Amino acid sequence: MNNTYYQSLIDTAKAILEENWVGTHTKPSFFLYPHQWNWDSGFISVGYSSYMQKRAQQEIYTLFAGQWKNGMVPQIVFDPDSLGGYFPEPGFWQTEKSGLVKEGKLTSGITMPPVHATVCRKIFERAKDKKESEIFLENMYPKLKRFHEYLYRYRDPKQEGLVYIRHPWESGVDNSPTWDKPLKSIKVDKSKLPPYERKDLSKGVPKEQRPTDEEYDRYVFLVDLFRRLNYDDIAIDAESPFKVQDILFNSILNRANKDLIFIADIIGEDSSDISKLASKTTASMQKKLWNRKQGIFNDYDLYNDNEIGVETASGFLPLYSGDATVKQAKKLYKYLESASFCAMHQGNCFSVPNFNMMHEEFDQVNYWRGPIWINMNWMLYHGLKSYGFREKAMSVMEDILELVRLYGFREYYDPYKGMGYGTNSFSWTAALFIDTVYEMDYPEEVIM
Amino acid sequence: MNNTYYQSLIDTAKAILEENWVGTHTKPSFFLYPHQWNWDSGFISVGYSSYMQKRAQQEIYTLFAGQWKNGMVPQIVFDPDSLGGYFPEPGFWQTEKSGLVKEGKLTSGITMPPVHATVCRKIFERAKDKKESEIFLENMYPKLKRFHEYLYRYRDPKQEGLVYIRHPWESGVDNSPTWDKPLKSIKVDKSKLPPYERKDLSKGVPKEQRPTDEEYDRYVFLVDLFRRLNYDDIAIDAESPFKVQDILFNSILNRANKDLIFIADIIGEDSSDISKLASKTTASMQKKLWNRKQGIFNDYDLYNDNEIGVETASGFLPLYSGDATVKQAKKLYKYLESASFCAMHQGNCFSVPNFNMMHEEFDQVNYWRGPIWINMNWMLYHGLKSYGFREKAMSVMEDILELVRLYGFREYYDPYKGMGYGTNSFSWTAALFIDTVYEMDYPEEVIM
Repeated sequence: MNNTYYQSLIDTAKAILEENWVGTHTKPSFFLYPHQWNWDSGFISVGYSSYMQKRAQQEIYTLFAGQWKNGMVPQIVFDPDSLGGYFPEPGFWQTEKSGLVKEGKLTSGITMPPVHATVCRKIFERAKDKKESEIFLENMYPKLKRFHEYLYRYRDPKQEGLVYIRHPWESGVDNSPTWDKPLKSIKVDKSKLPPYERKDLSKGVPKEQRPTDEEYDRYVFLVDLFRRLNYDDIAIDAESPFKVQDILFNSILNRANKDLIFIADIIGEDSSDISKLASKTTASMQKKLWNRKQGIFNDYDLYNDNEIGVETASGFLPLYSGDATVKQAKKLYKYLESASFCAMHQGNCFSVPNFNMMHEEFDQVNYWRGPIWINMNWMLYHGLKSYGFREKAMSVMEDILELVRLYGFREYYDPYKGMGYGTNSFSWTAALFIDTVYEMDYPEEVIM
Repeated sequence: MNNTYYQSLIDTAKAILEENWVGTHTKPSFFLYPHQWNWDSGFISVGYSSYMQKRAQQEIYTLFAGQWKNGMVPQIVFDPDSLGGYFPEPGFWQTEKSGLVKEGKLTSGITMPPVHATVCRKIFERAKDKKESEIFLENMYPKLKRFHEYLYRYRDPKQEGLVYIRHPWESGVDNSPTWDKPLKSIKVDKSKLPPYERKDLSKGVPKEQRPTDEEYDRYVFLVDLFRRLNYDDIAIDAESPFKVQDILFNSILNRANKDLIFIADIIGEDSSDISKLASKTTASMQKKLWNRKQGIFNDYDLYNDNEIGVETASGFLPLYSGDATVKQAKKLYKYLESASFCAMHQGNCFSVPNFNMMHEEFDQVNYWRGPIWINMNWMLYHGLKSYGFREKAMSVMEDILELVRLYGFREYYDPYKGMGYGTNSFSWTAALFIDTVYEMDYPEEVIM
């Protein structure tokens, strides 16, 4: 089987990216997400890397042009031409108060999972124009390094090698059940909240597939706190009631650390600082974030000083980062291959649901509280492969292809019915579909 | 195209390995190499890893059962049942004088390129029985680490991060033109050489495909020196006239360092010492072993303190180890894609010849002085792929398949005619052919 089987879907995927491309970057979706998002751009760039090197590079360049002076790469870089359709927008964030935003840039005031070193390595590996990819790596390396250094400097107060997120949106998995407990512990006086109007509900996506109003209140409460503190990292560290050592964020960071070391080696930079940080992160993940009883990795609530024992697909990501011990990997596999996360050959479901399907609060239609997301499948596919869970890796990869083939390029998918939810023509679904087919076909050319 | 196209060749390859298997390890070839060789076992084990995990592990366990007390893994572990057919044998090596050989073991007194951490990682990735592969990694990790530590402790007197070999045989590429100059600088008084009889010429391999008598004299001179010094590493360091920082050996070592870090992470060991050594090796290779004028890596003669400007396929191996800078990688690619090493679509040759084809001393039939070796193609295929030279990677991989398909499982191949030389039924050719087809077919299962 080769490319031709998927050719018309590949054409569609490329057309989607083309439609969402605005000349400097790619919108995650045309109407629902009209700006540039941090990790979305990473995944989107992976898709471009197999057929349009310049575009892949441009996507990353544009995102990092919004990098803050302290090294933070913001969650959203706003497109001045698309304002008015998304909440919260620059007027709400007021990031200009920080003194950290580059002249002429409009951004949100938080960050997102640092996939970008991993993406830059991939762009390099696939580059047709080596000269250009080299310049790209040389340009990107100091920026990537500053981003990672920012995280370890300001988000790891006890120098454990684990960085914390200060807002659920920083994880990218906005309404994951992981945040329920830490959010609930925040007392919000609604009368003191700044007025705001959600815009995600007026675009055709049903309410039950999106976060609740109670969650939104707390999202807003935290942003309000940050802007009152002028986005001062040290002040926020002292005052914020939400500090979570997230397993997704730290797995992606450490995978990126390892790829940053690869980049450093090949551009002739010394990588020993990053190596040290990477080993520390590995050790702490294995020790502190491992839930031995459940056989999965969990987040740790640094503010309330307790473990967050919630089983989501994020908990398997140390496979992707190469940070699970063999013992842990086997337990992860066992759990992933159970009815909780749709075992292979189970017949009635697709993998990988983002939340334990056996949990009473599992919700097959609601955003990060149950549905399948293609970026998670993509990371878990690579992770399972590197730990040698070959059949499962293939099965997770196959579900990327099948879900798209049967239900289109949606934002997320129902693990039982397969059907897609959220926006259509979703950029990272298109991009990672292209990547998956490309990876699959790679070795075939040899013998044709 | 899938497995079935190569199925009968895969069957033959497996039968060859079966024939050369002696219950504890695999002979490189039935008659010519009747014992266990260090890096041969590594490559052979890679072949087994895709279909016979236990056997892959046993191959490595048996080799490391011969590890010396100082950490060195010997080049040859002799099979007591096969003595009498190979020179030099235990009676010539006299390694019992060292006090470093384990009770009951017969070995040679030098080492070979440390591919084994890389192989162990691969065995783990492909293991069907995870529990067993975990025990395997836990058992192997301290042994692998001691081997690497031995090399940095005794073979890197200036702590440059570059280890030296003390005999051409330690490189595995016994009569590479790289050794001509350093060997010639050794003055040998033939009358003082111990008597010896070559046995490699009486087994049907023509003389012009093997090392010369002058080379053999020096091989013997060095072994005689080592045994007179009782294999004392410090004494040998002080007295040996052959100390070469070999690019092949250091590339393989640093690839293995990186894989050892992966292993350390997943079995929960601290890898910071190895990380430090690995960065140092990277930096020194890029600086000291790079031949800027020629655009290839070279060996350095530490004894005579000069560069050895000889262009062999070894000089491209920093692609395999991820240690070439992008600039260097581009120059390597350019040189590899020239008539010197058989460019793609050149039409009259196969790649990768082990020596510059334009050099007046290039010899298309002589062992490591011209012919193609499958293990070099295999390493260069992986290296080219990781630097994104996709088409070339595929072309080098294709030549593995084509040479075997057209000319059988030989020891080495003529870059012009393709025909095979040396022994037939050569184990690593069989093993790496199996691996190449396996890698190629890997993603296919998904969509069948």
